[in-house]
Amino acid sequence: LVWNHVLMNEGPQISPSGLPPTVDWAGDHAVIIDQTLLPAELRLVAIRTVDEMIAAIKRLAVRGAPAIGVAGAMGVAVAAIAAEREGRPVAWVHLEADRLAVARPTAVNLRWAVERVRPAIEFGAPAVVAAALAIRDADIASGMAVAARAADLVIDLCGTPVNVQTHCNAGSLACAEVGSALSVVRALHFRGALGVVHVDETRPLLQGARLTAYEMNALGVNYRVQVDGAGPSAIRLGLVNCVLIGADRIAANGDVCNKVGSYPLALAAARAGIPFVVVAPESTLDPMTPDGTAIEVEERSEDEVLLWGDRHICPPGARAWNPAFDVTPADLVSAVVTEARVIRPNRGERL
Amino acid sequence: LVWNHVLMNEGPQISPSGLPPTVDWAGDHAVIIDQTLLPAELRLVAIRTVDEMIAAIKRLAVRGAPAIGVAGAMGVAVAAIAAEREGRPVAWVHLEADRLAVARPTAVNLRWAVERVRPAIEFGAPAVVAAALAIRDADIASGMAVAARAADLVIDLCGTPVNVQTHCNAGSLACAEVGSALSVVRALHFRGALGVVHVDETRPLLQGARLTAYEMNALGVNYRVQVDGAGPSAIRLGLVNCVLIGADRIAANGDVCNKVGSYPLALAAARAGIPFVVVAPESTLDPMTPDGTAIEVEERSEDEVLLWGDRHICPPGARAWNPAFDVTPADLVSAVVTEARVIRPNRGERL
Repeated sequence: LVWNHVLMNEGPQISPSGLPPTVDWAGDHAVIIDQTLLPAELRLVAIRTVDEMIAAIKRLAVRGAPAIGVAGAMGVAVAAIAAEREGRPVAWVHLEADRLAVARPTAVNLRWAVERVRPAIEFGAPAVVAAALAIRDADIASGMAVAARAADLVIDLCGTPVNVQTHCNAGSLACAEVGSALSVVRALHFRGALGVVHVDETRPLLQGARLTAYEMNALGVNYRVQVDGAGPSAIRLGLVNCVLIGADRIAANGDVCNKVGSYPLALAAARAGIPFVVVAPESTLDPMTPDGTAIEVEERSEDEVLLWGDRHICPPGARAWNPAFDVTPADLVSAVVTEARVIRPNRGERL
Repeated sequence: LVWNHVLMNEGPQISPSGLPPTVDWAGDHAVIIDQTLLPAELRLVAIRTVDEMIAAIKRLAVRGAPAIGVAGAMGVAVAAIAAEREGRPVAWVHLEADRLAVARPTAVNLRWAVERVRPAIEFGAPAVVAAALAIRDADIASGMAVAARAADLVIDLCGTPVNVQTHCNAGSLACAEVGSALSVVRALHFRGALGVVHVDETRPLLQGARLTAYEMNALGVNYRVQVDGAGPSAIRLGLVNCVLIGADRIAANGDVCNKVGSYPLALAAARAGIPFVVVAPESTLDPMTPDGTAIEVEERSEDEVLLWGDRHICPPGARAWNPAFDVTPADLVSAVVTEARVIRPNRGERL
């Protein structure tokens, strides 16, 4: 069991979530938690080839914009090591990096991280590994920094206790190990400022029910899982006073692309007059994309909606529309909080 | 197989949905489709006791506000027949009626229908049966009348083709046999005015994926099933130009109580400037309830959210919040269409 990453070289040999790192490096290969098996099983999987990493990203064994960024960078490191072992040219590593960059289309972190390590390729595998680990460490540091800043902001905006509505999983399982939105939940909890957390189950792949609930359980906070259609009701009824979510890409004007089902929470929050706060690392910001209309939203397999495991939910012949993400217009976004700053898109602030 | 109800004594020996009646009467007992088994199996179940009827209503074997109204009335008829057979007093039938009226709390049709047949109790079982059948026939006639009126309205508001977003199942399976919102879809289809129908799967019990998809399949229309979180995106992206849903109760001011997940569609429709149209029989209107805050929203078992069949989705110890319905404020409701009239709550019109 690989559970040996020391957070920032301080503290105990586990991450603050109580889980092993979501994406870790083990000398010459990557190690990920296979999130498709949670919460039933916590299985760590060694990733020794680019094909394995791409498959893990595509099937959401590793998911969450920051985590797949780190995974993409480590995928390039795996390629660089393979190239040296097998006597392949540098150009081959670049082609492998190209394949990694497009394993999923929407989260900008994946492409960002691959391009970030790419210049190291010409300096050999150890340089690529070091560059990938730097991205991993920056992600962890980002989670720590954003948590404090966002917790300050949320307490300022909402008072205490903060009762949180969240969606999907923007936790340690979405990042290298600390998390974005759920790192704020953790900070609020440790400050004694947290009330209850309402967790959308997040169909079709149930990242909320499976992963966020798992993290909330580990943290020992008071939480309730609900169907996605109930989130806006929780807001309307005043059961929560803050929406805290992550993001997969944020456009220059502040439009936020996140897991499908985020937009209805933003609509409900605006109507109820409660803050809709997006927590993400700077690597999720995409100033080159002018607004949400320019973001490619991944459409995933219809079977994710039509089947449950191998059992048909729908009648034979049914078709599905399965966008993985939605776009929340900037005017509904109260704040984007990163490790570096607070941006207020609904006040017209741009990235 | 009981498939012999002649619609209004006209036309072929099947209902316009192509399905047997959702709730039917067979001489001395009721017959329902067990909707928990759809779409895998179309099973008709005989209901010979009040306990059986209450259990069927509670476990959603029969569901949909109009359908459980008819079921409640037929439950009183079953009680009246049992009383005569077993020599029980009229007061006993009234007590059985009391139990039926509260089998589920939110839909007003159930209580309405039970109270509607109650005066017949003193005239004996045949009178109660006749009163229950009158409610059934009125429900069927209502579905036919509302379909034409609402189709006219929707074409007027949206032009053609009408691309529909719906939620849950407001179809023949929610009524005695014609349906509310889906009767309008059917009318639009037969007029050549229907484009595509976006069907929310409707967690936790998947009435959309299981039942509405089943009805759309039978009707041969172009439809797509989507997760509930995607409905507001379908609206935002212009994939649909009209929301058509049913209702479980409508308050005097026009606040609409319907399956949880309806409110986010109303928010998205208002933002996109497309009509949010509620289709329901007059028996769903509740002028005695001033507004949505006075409606008791049923909270159902946490296991509906936490389990899939007998398999745990969430980690051990997880808790759920499982409201069956939500309330859409009147200002977001473009129209309530019944067999008798069109009400425009967002213009301040009251019931």
